[in-house]
Amino acid sequence: MNEFELLLKSIEPPDAGWEQKASERLGSQIRPRGSLGQIEKIAARLAAIRRAIDIDLSRKLILVLAGDHGIAAEGVSAYPQEVTAQMVYSFTRGWASINVLGRHAGAEVRVVDCGIASDIPPEWNVIDRKVGPGTASISKGPAMSREQAVQGILNGARLVTEAYEREGFRLFGTGDMGIGNTTPSAAIVSALGGQSPARLTGRGTGIDDAGLAKKIAAIETALTVNRPDPNDPLDVLSKVGGFEIAALAGAVLGAAAVKAPLACDGLIATAGALIACRLAPHSTGYLFVSHRSAEPGHIAMCDLIGTRPILDLDMRLGEGTGSALAMNIIEAAAKVLVECKTFAEAGVTDTGH
Amino acid sequence: MNEFELLLKSIEPPDAGWEQKASERLGSQIRPRGSLGQIEKIAARLAAIRRAIDIDLSRKLILVLAGDHGIAAEGVSAYPQEVTAQMVYSFTRGWASINVLGRHAGAEVRVVDCGIASDIPPEWNVIDRKVGPGTASISKGPAMSREQAVQGILNGARLVTEAYEREGFRLFGTGDMGIGNTTPSAAIVSALGGQSPARLTGRGTGIDDAGLAKKIAAIETALTVNRPDPNDPLDVLSKVGGFEIAALAGAVLGAAAVKAPLACDGLIATAGALIACRLAPHSTGYLFVSHRSAEPGHIAMCDLIGTRPILDLDMRLGEGTGSALAMNIIEAAAKVLVECKTFAEAGVTDTGH
Repeated sequence: MNEFELLLKSIEPPDAGWEQKASERLGSQIRPRGSLGQIEKIAARLAAIRRAIDIDLSRKLILVLAGDHGIAAEGVSAYPQEVTAQMVYSFTRGWASINVLGRHAGAEVRVVDCGIASDIPPEWNVIDRKVGPGTASISKGPAMSREQAVQGILNGARLVTEAYEREGFRLFGTGDMGIGNTTPSAAIVSALGGQSPARLTGRGTGIDDAGLAKKIAAIETALTVNRPDPNDPLDVLSKVGGFEIAALAGAVLGAAAVKAPLACDGLIATAGALIACRLAPHSTGYLFVSHRSAEPGHIAMCDLIGTRPILDLDMRLGEGTGSALAMNIIEAAAKVLVECKTFAEAGVTDTGH
Repeated sequence: MNEFELLLKSIEPPDAGWEQKASERLGSQIRPRGSLGQIEKIAARLAAIRRAIDIDLSRKLILVLAGDHGIAAEGVSAYPQEVTAQMVYSFTRGWASINVLGRHAGAEVRVVDCGIASDIPPEWNVIDRKVGPGTASISKGPAMSREQAVQGILNGARLVTEAYEREGFRLFGTGDMGIGNTTPSAAIVSALGGQSPARLTGRGTGIDDAGLAKKIAAIETALTVNRPDPNDPLDVLSKVGGFEIAALAGAVLGAAAVKAPLACDGLIATAGALIACRLAPHSTGYLFVSHRSAEPGHIAMCDLIGTRPILDLDMRLGEGTGSALAMNIIEAAAKVLVECKTFAEAGVTDTGH
C-alpha cells in the first residue's frame, strides 16, 4: 500500500464504549438529564474520539489553507485573483478576521500555500505546500491531475498529524482562502449529491445577478465537460476541486488518523470535509461542522455528511472564522465532561430526571 | 420620583450614530461586506450601547439569581424544592455546569439569594438579597406583593450598576436557579403574549405527561385566579412571577441604565428580560438573548422582545450556562470591530463588495 492508501486504512471509527462511559458521567452530573443538549452530545463524541474522559483540548490549531482557481478568470468572483495572496499576507501579519478570532479562541493560526497562483515571498513565513500555481479552469477540463489531488490531500493530512504528534495540538480547525473557490465547492456538492448547480450556488464574496448566472453556467459547464464520477471522490476532487480543497480534505483525514477532533469552517472547508468523508466514511466521526454558512450549497453538504452545524450566525467569510468560534464551544463541552461534579459527589438530591 | 421610577427614566436608547460609525468601520475591514453576518450586527450594536468603537469587554460577570416558588409544592417539577439550596451550595463550591462554563468564558460567577425558601448559611458567601422565603403559590393568589416585585427589581439592577461602577465589569450575563420556576416563566409569557399555557409550557427539568398536564392546569388556574394585566408588567411579575425573575428583570434594567451589554440565558432569564423590556422599552437595545431554549415558551418570549437568540444548542438548563457561551461570541464581535484592519490599512484590493 502507498501512503495515501495507508492513511485511509488507518482510520478507525470513534469508540462507542467511551461514548457510553461519557454519557453515563454526563447523565450523573448535577443537572437534569440531557439539559445541556448539543453540549452533552459533543462531549460524548469527544470521549469517543479521544478514548478518554479526562480530555484536554487547550492546544488548538487553525490551518488556513490557500489556493487559486483558474475559473476565477471567468468572472465568477467579486474580487480579482491577486486578493488571495494579499489576504495571505494579512494573515501572516495578524490583521484579518481569522487572526482576531483565532487569538480570541486561544488557537494558533497557520497559513499554508496549497496552490496560490503567484510566488509567495519566503520572508512571509507562509508554510509552502504548493502543488501548482493555481488550478486549471474547471469549465475547460480537470482542475488538476489525480496525482496532484492525492499530493494535496497528503499535505493536509501531514500538517495535522505532525502538529498532533510533534507539538501536542489536540483540537484542530480548518479554514480556506482562495478567490473563486465557492465555485468548485458548489460543483463538488452538485457532483456528489446530484442537486442542480442552480440550487446550490450562492453569491460568494458578493457577485450581482449577472455574475451569479455566469457562475451557475460555469459550474454546469464544468460538470458537463468533466463528468466527475460521484462514486469516486478523488475523481470529483481532481476534476472540479481545488488545491486548498484537497488539503482541507486531507486535514480531516489526518485528524481522524490521529484520533483528534477537527472543526471545519463553512462552504469550502466543508466541501473538503465531504470529500474526506467519502474517501474514509469513519472520518465523519471526528468531524464537527462549525457553523451553517449563508451559502446555499452548505446545508446540502451537511445533509450528505449527516451532521448538524454547531453555530448559525449567517456567516459566509471562510478563513476558518467559524471554526475559531466553534472550537470554543467544543472545548467548553470537554470541560463540562471533565469538571462538573456528579449528584453523588456534590450531595444533591437525584430524582433520576 | 422614587428610585424605581428614576431607574426606568434613566434608560436611553443605544446611540444610532455610533452604530453607524461601527458599521462603516466593519464594512471597510478586509472581508466581503457583511460576511461575518450576526457577528457584525452584534459588533455594531455594541458600539451603539457603549458609544465607542474601542470596546473592551474583558471584565465579565455572570449573576446567578436564585429563588423558590410556592407552586413547586403542587408537583410541577421533577425535583424537590430543597434542590434550589443544594445547587446554590454547588455554585459556591465551583462544582456545577455554570462554574465550568463561567471559568471557560473568563467570567466571574456570583450567586444571589433573591428568595430561597430555606435560610442560606452565611459561610456559603452567597449574596443575600432575599425578598422573602419563596413566593406564595400562584395558583392560589399573587406570588408576591407589588412592593416586593419592585424591591426584587431594584436588587437586580443595583447588582449590575454597582459591579459596573465600582469594579469595572463591562459585559453581564444572567442565569437562574429555582425549582419550579419554568411554571411562573410560562405564566408570564402567556399573560403578556396572550398564547395559551398549553402551547407555551414544557417539561422543565423533566416531568412526565401527567406532570406536564398538572403544570399546564396550574398555570391556567394561576392566570384565572390572578387575572394579571398584560398592560402592567409589574402586575404580571408580582402576580405570576418569582423573586429571582424580578431580579433578572432588574439586571437588564441596570445594564441598560449604565449602558452595558447584557446576555440573558434561557426561559426564566428571558422571562425577566421580557418584563424589563415592557417596563422600559429602550432596555431591549442593551439585551442579547444568549440561546434558543428547548422550552416551548422561550421562542414566544424572543418574538415578543423582537430578538433572535445567538445560539441554538437544544439547551434547557438555566444557571446562566447559555449566557456563558454567548458572552464568548459577544466578546469576539467586539474584538473584530476593534482589531481587524481595513482594506486601506492592509493594502488589500477593495472592489466594494
